[in-house]
Amino acid sequence: MNTPTAATGHPHQKRVGIERRERTRALLIRSAIDVFARLGPDAPVIDDFIAAAGVARGTFYNYFRSPHALLAAVTEALNEEVLGMVDPHVLRYDDPAQRFCVGTRLYVHFALRYPVWGTFLTRIGPAHAVRGRRLDRYLMRDLALGLASGRLRAASALVVRDMILGSVFFGIETQLTEGGAGPRHVEEMLAMVLQGVGLAADEARAIATMPLPDIGPVSSPVFATLHTAPDN
Amino acid sequence: MNTPTAATGHPHQKRVGIERRERTRALLIRSAIDVFARLGPDAPVIDDFIAAAGVARGTFYNYFRSPHALLAAVTEALNEEVLGMVDPHVLRYDDPAQRFCVGTRLYVHFALRYPVWGTFLTRIGPAHAVRGRRLDRYLMRDLALGLASGRLRAASALVVRDMILGSVFFGIETQLTEGGAGPRHVEEMLAMVLQGVGLAADEARAIATMPLPDIGPVSSPVFATLHTAPDN
Repeated sequence: MNTPTAATGHPHQKRVGIERRERTRALLIRSAIDVFARLGPDAPVIDDFIAAAGVARGTFYNYFRSPHALLAAVTEALNEEVLGMVDPHVLRYDDPAQRFCVGTRLYVHFALRYPVWGTFLTRIGPAHAVRGRRLDRYLMRDLALGLASGRLRAASALVVRDMILGSVFFGIETQLTEGGAGPRHVEEMLAMVLQGVGLAADEARAIATMPLPDIGPVSSPVFATLHTAPDN
Repeated sequence: MNTPTAATGHPHQKRVGIERRERTRALLIRSAIDVFARLGPDAPVIDDFIAAAGVARGTFYNYFRSPHALLAAVTEALNEEVLGMVDPHVLRYDDPAQRFCVGTRLYVHFALRYPVWGTFLTRIGPAHAVRGRRLDRYLMRDLALGLASGRLRAASALVVRDMILGSVFFGIETQLTEGGAGPRHVEEMLAMVLQGVGLAADEARAIATMPLPDIGPVSSPVFATLHTAPDN
């Protein structure tokens, strides 16, 4: 937020100015998702973003120092929106195994339902998309809980995290780019992960495929404006 | 191979010309690994490659049409070299579980022993680095064998492949960029994968940590010229 610190002008004018500023910033972020999904994290230049958003070059610099600053803002904004919708539902489960499966499945369903977001994630790669971010921290929280209680068995939370995030990101890319993956691709990977951390095959499958909570209509600012994949 | 088809000049001159051509191509490929590892797959321009290799711009175009053609050549050349060294050893194992563990561990050890190669792999991402390439095909071969014989249990070879390649690529990046991963990171992930496909915990651990075959000194053209990581 770049709210002015000195109160200037009429309160109404000030509020209108802040709202316009937020709208322009959201427009830059929304149109940048498609640019990064098409061109990758490193190739786009400022001309690509201002063409996509239909704004002047000077406008870009009013909001972001560089394409990489915009990349960071896009990643942050959309991950915040997804996790803000997903985590409250995840926290209703006490079992850490159920938590990470439900959270991961909801996250993947966003990536597949909004293919420009899924393509963005796999194209910019996990180093930008997820390391050290909220999904990573929430997952480590649930895995640490599971290891401490003995519910999950593994050498460390980091090893399990790498297996989950690695499988999931690779699996999203498979579903978006290759034929042959079935509609329960993420559920089948999660069932194997659960068996890998010591659950019996039957229980692993039951948890990996349990009904997902209904997270309701998407009202978060950027996602509400993205196109969804056609229903199958 | 771009061997001239019309025999021109003296046989000795012709041989010298072919050798020089191969040397220059190898020089461009070798120096491009570092450029892509630093700048990613999409950002580098021809100036970056000719500066790194110390050749003229026209020389670049004698060998490659574009930076992306060079990226494809780098990926192809190094994956061929690694798999050419690894696969003959893998084929000595009859058990598909042992095969994919040994093959994967040897591949990861190359990525960590030659960090510029490991960084290249994680920076350019799996879509360029591995999908549809030899590692992918060999792994699918071993997984299909394992599923057909009942040694491995899973919904499909594709699901297991995504779990292995996803975990391994994510894990290589963790080892190169984050603290906290232990020296047996890949072995611990593979033990979980083996449990995930139905092996008992003890057997999974034994196979994931079995002694690796000695693949001998690295004599393949590009790898022999790369710097290795300092020994711990």
